[in-house]
Amino acid sequence: MRQLDAIFSPQSVAVVGASTTPGKVGHDIFVNILQGDYRGTLYPVNPRARSVRSVRAYPSISELPEPVDLAIIVLPPKLALSAVEEAAEKGIKGIVIVSAGFREIGGDGRKIEDEIVAKCRQAGIRMIGPNCLGVINPNPSVRLNASFSTHMPAFGHISFISQSGALCTAVLDFAAEREFGFSKFVSIGNKADVDELELLLFLHQDPETNVIMVYLEEISRGPEFIKTAKHITSGHRPTPIVVVKSGRTIAGQRAAASHTGSLAGSDAIYEAFFQQTGIIRADSIEDLFNYAAAFSYKKIPAGNRVGIITNAGGPGIVATDMTISSGLELAKFSQETVEALTSHLPPTANVLNPVDVIGDAPEDRYENALRSVISDEGVDGAIVILTPQSMTNALGTAEVIARIAINTQKPILCCFMGVVDVSAGVNHLQEHGLPVFRFPEQAAQAFGKLYHYSRWMNRQSLDQFKLIHDKDRASKIIQRALAQGRPSMSELEGEQVLQCYGFKVLQSMLARTKEEAGEFAESIKAPVALKIVSPQILHKSDVGGVVLNIDDGKTAAQEFEAIVQRGLEHVPNAEIDGVLVQKMAEREGQEVILGMNRYPIYGPLLMFGLGGIFVEIFRDVVFRVAPIGRNEAHRMISSIKGIKILQGYRGKPPLDVETLERSLVSLSAMVMDHPEIHELDINPLMVYEKGKDAVVGDCRIILKAPEEQ
Amino acid sequence: MRQLDAIFSPQSVAVVGASTTPGKVGHDIFVNILQGDYRGTLYPVNPRARSVRSVRAYPSISELPEPVDLAIIVLPPKLALSAVEEAAEKGIKGIVIVSAGFREIGGDGRKIEDEIVAKCRQAGIRMIGPNCLGVINPNPSVRLNASFSTHMPAFGHISFISQSGALCTAVLDFAAEREFGFSKFVSIGNKADVDELELLLFLHQDPETNVIMVYLEEISRGPEFIKTAKHITSGHRPTPIVVVKSGRTIAGQRAAASHTGSLAGSDAIYEAFFQQTGIIRADSIEDLFNYAAAFSYKKIPAGNRVGIITNAGGPGIVATDMTISSGLELAKFSQETVEALTSHLPPTANVLNPVDVIGDAPEDRYENALRSVISDEGVDGAIVILTPQSMTNALGTAEVIARIAINTQKPILCCFMGVVDVSAGVNHLQEHGLPVFRFPEQAAQAFGKLYHYSRWMNRQSLDQFKLIHDKDRASKIIQRALAQGRPSMSELEGEQVLQCYGFKVLQSMLARTKEEAGEFAESIKAPVALKIVSPQILHKSDVGGVVLNIDDGKTAAQEFEAIVQRGLEHVPNAEIDGVLVQKMAEREGQEVILGMNRYPIYGPLLMFGLGGIFVEIFRDVVFRVAPIGRNEAHRMISSIKGIKILQGYRGKPPLDVETLERSLVSLSAMVMDHPEIHELDINPLMVYEKGKDAVVGDCRIILKAPEEQ
Repeated sequence: MRQLDAIFSPQSVAVVGASTTPGKVGHDIFVNILQGDYRGTLYPVNPRARSVRSVRAYPSISELPEPVDLAIIVLPPKLALSAVEEAAEKGIKGIVIVSAGFREIGGDGRKIEDEIVAKCRQAGIRMIGPNCLGVINPNPSVRLNASFSTHMPAFGHISFISQSGALCTAVLDFAAEREFGFSKFVSIGNKADVDELELLLFLHQDPETNVIMVYLEEISRGPEFIKTAKHITSGHRPTPIVVVKSGRTIAGQRAAASHTGSLAGSDAIYEAFFQQTGIIRADSIEDLFNYAAAFSYKKIPAGNRVGIITNAGGPGIVATDMTISSGLELAKFSQETVEALTSHLPPTANVLNPVDVIGDAPEDRYENALRSVISDEGVDGAIVILTPQSMTNALGTAEVIARIAINTQKPILCCFMGVVDVSAGVNHLQEHGLPVFRFPEQAAQAFGKLYHYSRWMNRQSLDQFKLIHDKDRASKIIQRALAQGRPSMSELEGEQVLQCYGFKVLQSMLARTKEEAGEFAESIKAPVALKIVSPQILHKSDVGGVVLNIDDGKTAAQEFEAIVQRGLEHVPNAEIDGVLVQKMAEREGQEVILGMNRYPIYGPLLMFGLGGIFVEIFRDVVFRVAPIGRNEAHRMISSIKGIKILQGYRGKPPLDVETLERSLVSLSAMVMDHPEIHELDINPLMVYEKGKDAVVGDCRIILKAPEEQ
Repeated sequence: MRQLDAIFSPQSVAVVGASTTPGKVGHDIFVNILQGDYRGTLYPVNPRARSVRSVRAYPSISELPEPVDLAIIVLPPKLALSAVEEAAEKGIKGIVIVSAGFREIGGDGRKIEDEIVAKCRQAGIRMIGPNCLGVINPNPSVRLNASFSTHMPAFGHISFISQSGALCTAVLDFAAEREFGFSKFVSIGNKADVDELELLLFLHQDPETNVIMVYLEEISRGPEFIKTAKHITSGHRPTPIVVVKSGRTIAGQRAAASHTGSLAGSDAIYEAFFQQTGIIRADSIEDLFNYAAAFSYKKIPAGNRVGIITNAGGPGIVATDMTISSGLELAKFSQETVEALTSHLPPTANVLNPVDVIGDAPEDRYENALRSVISDEGVDGAIVILTPQSMTNALGTAEVIARIAINTQKPILCCFMGVVDVSAGVNHLQEHGLPVFRFPEQAAQAFGKLYHYSRWMNRQSLDQFKLIHDKDRASKIIQRALAQGRPSMSELEGEQVLQCYGFKVLQSMLARTKEEAGEFAESIKAPVALKIVSPQILHKSDVGGVVLNIDDGKTAAQEFEAIVQRGLEHVPNAEIDGVLVQKMAEREGQEVILGMNRYPIYGPLLMFGLGGIFVEIFRDVVFRVAPIGRNEAHRMISSIKGIKILQGYRGKPPLDVETLERSLVSLSAMVMDHPEIHELDINPLMVYEKGKDAVVGDCRIILKAPEEQ
């Protein structure tokens, strides 16, 4: 038996803290399990009651007549700790602690929570919570409703993991209204032991779960998350994951921090996580439902060509708009399909996509239209819209749709508009597992997510680069800087480290005197740039420490003095190591930026974008968490809007995108090899025509000794 | 009595084509009026029935015992025409033609529709339809349900105009579920006589309408629409208008065209219409409901600072995210408010925004929190979130919210999550006119729209420019080109026309020989550009017809020959008028593009954006329909993302935005003065530092004689 089975499918359950007072959590949870018709044996534990709701109570866990699989603990922190200790002695395998007052209030609460986790780990007990709503398993052979909610949801194939307990009740309530069926339902609370990642793995192995919905505030483990979630969504027997992640905005992150006591990372990190793992992101709780309904149906389109069938023009147009906006296309029907539609539909019908079967369409007209459309090889799936009109037979139409759906692997998403008039049809579709939406936009958006997932599962796989890096040399340079107590490396050092990872740099020499500056400028034989070098001066331009386009040695020597003087004016005590004399980059290139910031829990976040205004005004940047390989680098670069500029814009030749891919992979290797690199910017990296490589224009590396991190 | 009152509030109604057969439209509409408890007198007209549903029938309109206000006609086109003729003779004031088969099928249908309209106009009858669902007025003193729908909606203060009949039924169905109240409900169908604009005006004057929702496929009258809708949304007694406009995508426009037989304009035009009229655009039918609910409440926030009160962390975070994404801010509470919250709430509560009153909050905790928050001067409105938890009293909480809401002008938007558990509270809020949403995102989004509307009503008003234009001279230049049968003006002519409207142009001379080219280049005394001039060559660069940066007369003379030769190679029969020798624009400027396209029905669409990649890759452009004044020009320029570049970016000086405003106003005047200008591009207009003006770099003007338009 898998460890979490003791929690989700226990043979016996004890509610520790079961109360006789209605309204108290310890009473309500006990009643919800009891009245939910739990298929195992249920024990109330209460030292002061002989029975709870007619069920014989036991004064303590140790006095239970047999070992139980699961203990639901509803007790204040200190008593909860004692109960866990007792449970360990009794041989209990799973625990759910519902009560609050632990890590989220800090101080003693946090301490007790840590002790409980230690005790569970020692005893081999798995624990959900504390500070959670509980768990629900509506499977007819289990029927465990160990939650605050009086509603046991219907059994189905969607599992839900929620980091917000309060949200769970509302979600169950909506689910009841829409007859949503669940496989497993779990509120993770403080996730002191079992966290979202472990649950994702458990649900991935659950044959009853077709799709996992998650409400997430923050993840607990960054690097493992990527590896595991990617495997779940695209490995053997892939399971789609749909997530609402709150804290998209800075204000939202602050609200989350004050709520859970943990600092959620910036949204860019989460966006990277989701991109890298194929997780579908929903923008709202309502979308979460809609997407889960579509995925639960288990039919993923092979392509993005959608056929729309409707009995009303307006909703057809609305669906068309959202189809296009969701990255899909309106299918072009074959001649054969058009002929079939023409022969079956009245003359006023529209036989092109969207097919309008006209307001008075009976079910057979839908049947003929859908059969023709779905069997067209140029169609990857269909959206069927029904509005209640005078001749509409919602149930009959639902029946023909369900019959056709059985015989095709192409997804058919339905939109039956209205509530009262169409409910018999909606129920029939749901009973047959077909996703049905209230508004045409929702069906089209959900289809867009199915297609997105299809592309993720069938994503391109390029050969990896064979890269040779000089990790040792880079380590030495880094260690030297750290040994000298310098948190930021000089540009020259930074470039040396980058060179160890295959980056090309501009020829440059450190001049310590004006004479050297002149000499070096002559020897480099080209327009050069002069840049001040001082550990105290990080932003060279701001102190007038950079002069570009110097053509001769004499000017270089003069500028050397001027630069040093300006540097000292701005930072009087700066130690000036000298002035870097650097060959100017060739102009024809395009500036791009590569960057990295290292975050606790999450890891190193890589950044890529075009330089200057593209980043600063249009925010056209993309993030990924290292390590990444070539395919992730390729997707990163392809996903910026400015990709057209890299591909050769307005007759300009395409740029060396392969080199950019290699650069990102090398950068990833570099930050993985050297955890001391805390922050890094290559700004700009000048990239040239295809085959002509790229060169580092400037770089900035901030170090942090591992012990400071 | 206003003309449309005969349609919406008739004293007596005849259903012409009333049928005795259930399921037929002529039967169902009659029954819906009858069973809807219509307060006037209802007559069925049917030549073959003695009575319809026990009501005495009359064989024809002329035999009705009295003149009636409104005739609902449910007859095929030819019979409908006869009925209209009879109605005119009988003195009927209003007609609704429900039947289809008119303009939308073309041919005879269109002809009959035109005849009906002519007859109505002649007789002073106002007509809704044909091809529509009907009209509904739920006011208790009228109770007219002249529609296909068996549901008479509740009476309320939202009016709905729909261009899709089928959508109406679904909307009524949803409305019933959410207890949405309507003032007037009308399906406009082919809008052969009464169109959306007239209805907007009528509903604006209707004291029972607080907000107008519209489902729109295309508008009938462009220029009047802007003037009228702007007056409705921001003149005396402003009425907010919320619109779903389908056909956002090209595919959607095509679907709309095949549906209604009319060509909907590109979405850019509609976006311009909505921006210029203060119409709130909803992205989906569901949003339409949500926004209308918020506006129906009639409280518009003075600013964008929102206070959030919640009994659950997760939904509070979700609301915070959407608050920020919707252009709002989280209010910063005053010291006094924080102290009041601290004194009223338990120690674990969060007294900063979002206020977390904790899961076990009874109604008085909500009351204290909301009272403190809403009276804070730094708060412009509140979002109150309730999730059903163990101690939650949804009704009690709704009561305290409603009590507080009466005494404040600040909007309070509620989100009661869940369906079953909170319904008593939701009902109470709705009865008191308070907007209540199902998900926190919806409340925050709706608040964003309220604020958007507040900004529209309080928009800035700059003094208009005093511009003097030489309209006559421009006319002469245009007429000369038209007289010569040339659809496109030469660059030189275009610049002359632009100069008549105050645009600065680069010094330029038309060289007819290589010698002249050399001479002119010397006389202009600066780097010049050479550009081929030929009526057959529109895209000069594509044929190698442009050479830039020529520094001396000799090179200019050589290039003259090369340009002419290349031109003739590409367009063998081109008549070459010569080569324009033009002073190069100064480099320091920023390129912007001004453009215009003239559309039938809609008018001249002005375009503004930054040049090159900004337009082509980032689509950072904005549109308005001429005529525009300075304020609209100002809003246009401010609304592009690249505005930061114009305001002075990275230490660069701010550019001459006032000149850009003036240029747009002048361009607007120019295209209004000269309807022969069909298309126009000024690309680039080089704009310089503030106070240093702008200069036309190149322009292209396409003419069309008015008779061709």
